[in-house]
Amino acid sequence: MGEPATKRAKTDNETNGEDTKDTKAQSDYDDATQKILEQIDQVQGEIDSLNEKASEEILKVEQKYNSLRKPFFEKRNELVRDIPNFWVTAFVNHPNISAILDEEEEECLHYLTKVEVEEFDDIKSGYRIKLTFDENPFFENTQIVKEFFLGNAEPTSTTTEIKWKPDNELVNKIKAKSAQTADGTPGPRSFFAWLSDNQDASNDEIAELIKDDLWPNPLQYFLVPDLDDGAEGGLDEEGGSENDENAEDLEEADDAGEERED
Amino acid sequence: MGEPATKRAKTDNETNGEDTKDTKAQSDYDDATQKILEQIDQVQGEIDSLNEKASEEILKVEQKYNSLRKPFFEKRNELVRDIPNFWVTAFVNHPNISAILDEEEEECLHYLTKVEVEEFDDIKSGYRIKLTFDENPFFENTQIVKEFFLGNAEPTSTTTEIKWKPDNELVNKIKAKSAQTADGTPGPRSFFAWLSDNQDASNDEIAELIKDDLWPNPLQYFLVPDLDDGAEGGLDEEGGSENDENAEDLEEADDAGEERED
Repeated sequence: MGEPATKRAKTDNETNGEDTKDTKAQSDYDDATQKILEQIDQVQGEIDSLNEKASEEILKVEQKYNSLRKPFFEKRNELVRDIPNFWVTAFVNHPNISAILDEEEEECLHYLTKVEVEEFDDIKSGYRIKLTFDENPFFENTQIVKEFFLGNAEPTSTTTEIKWKPDNELVNKIKAKSAQTADGTPGPRSFFAWLSDNQDASNDEIAELIKDDLWPNPLQYFLVPDLDDGAEGGLDEEGGSENDENAEDLEEADDAGEERED
Repeated sequence: MGEPATKRAKTDNETNGEDTKDTKAQSDYDDATQKILEQIDQVQGEIDSLNEKASEEILKVEQKYNSLRKPFFEKRNELVRDIPNFWVTAFVNHPNISAILDEEEEECLHYLTKVEVEEFDDIKSGYRIKLTFDENPFFENTQIVKEFFLGNAEPTSTTTEIKWKPDNELVNKIKAKSAQTADGTPGPRSFFAWLSDNQDASNDEIAELIKDDLWPNPLQYFLVPDLDDGAEGGLDEEGGSENDENAEDLEEADDAGEERED
């Protein structure tokens, strides 16, 4: 359950306090009603305090599992580093992320060697996406971090300043390209435009896709579905229950490979 | 973290199995890569199983607090019953719900004596909204239940059949009204149209507002803000941290009332 907004009560109790906002209407309710309203308010207080305790307990569970998952994510990072073009392949195969990937950006992402998503310790207050790059012709940075601060009413974000190399400023190049084709409609945002843009950090679709979809299981996007084996071989839109099947495929593939080697 | 969709691996291992979907490309990866992919898949399996355990633990926390909250919700229901027009007032004061409330529907909701929201035991699979009515000129029912089944890929919902009394079928009346004013634009849905409509149960905005906003704290909507004391006295859009303030107002109001009686 969400935490609802609250309103001030319609009472005239604060005539001598510093708070002079509520100037109406004890008289709005008769004494009996007022009494019941107070009782409801007390019960509401108990419910609110239970809600708070529930949130705290859930937070603790999430923190515990973040710690438990961490070594596996690290192990995965190590393994992934030895797969050529792992991340660029996963990005290109992700339907929503590929939608904002310009060709030259795809080229640039061949130098992307590590993706990390780290939630802040208290989880609710934000997270960061860390992209680690090999030396590359596009920028000097080896790491670009986009960080979301969600703890405040107005979420904000920051991005490592990208030190573009001369003549390879992808963001400007892409802007120039889309300006050429411009017919009034704004072109699709590029990946690096998304990365650098910190004007509106609320509900950032790309960031959330990376955090909640790509990062939890990038292998599924690295392993391309066979497009020629019909609908069933394609995307499975119904949750993650087929991971085991995926694993079996890989194991069997391995066995088959060994047999062939004999 | 969400549960991501998965894809099948691009392997050619299933030549003699019943599964003939995967017919490509052991050859897509060299043996070393294939080995690493299998290791990644194993790590992914561990991550997935931790995700599952985390979900289960969170579910248990939610179930525990649903039980703990229950007696307070029941107590609240009892108290609310003694406040005249509590629910209709809360509905009318809720900005989004009032937006679909026709005048005659508002009249009808004066007979609404109880609102209950019950999540199913496993929470994720759905919830029901129970509306209890006094005898009234509009329909024979004393209870109307709208129930959401969210466990399946395609969420569904059901509503108690409303036994309208002759000449008081609000839904048809409102349809007729909006047809009169019709200029091609569809009129706003009415509350009873929402209640009876089970064509699309996914992301039902009104149902979710009732479940996650009105039901957790209806008092805040019953207690109208003083509209004439400026912006600060109005809606507070920033979460529920002002419940205590609300409570204080009520307590102080009570003291003031007692003093006056002396």
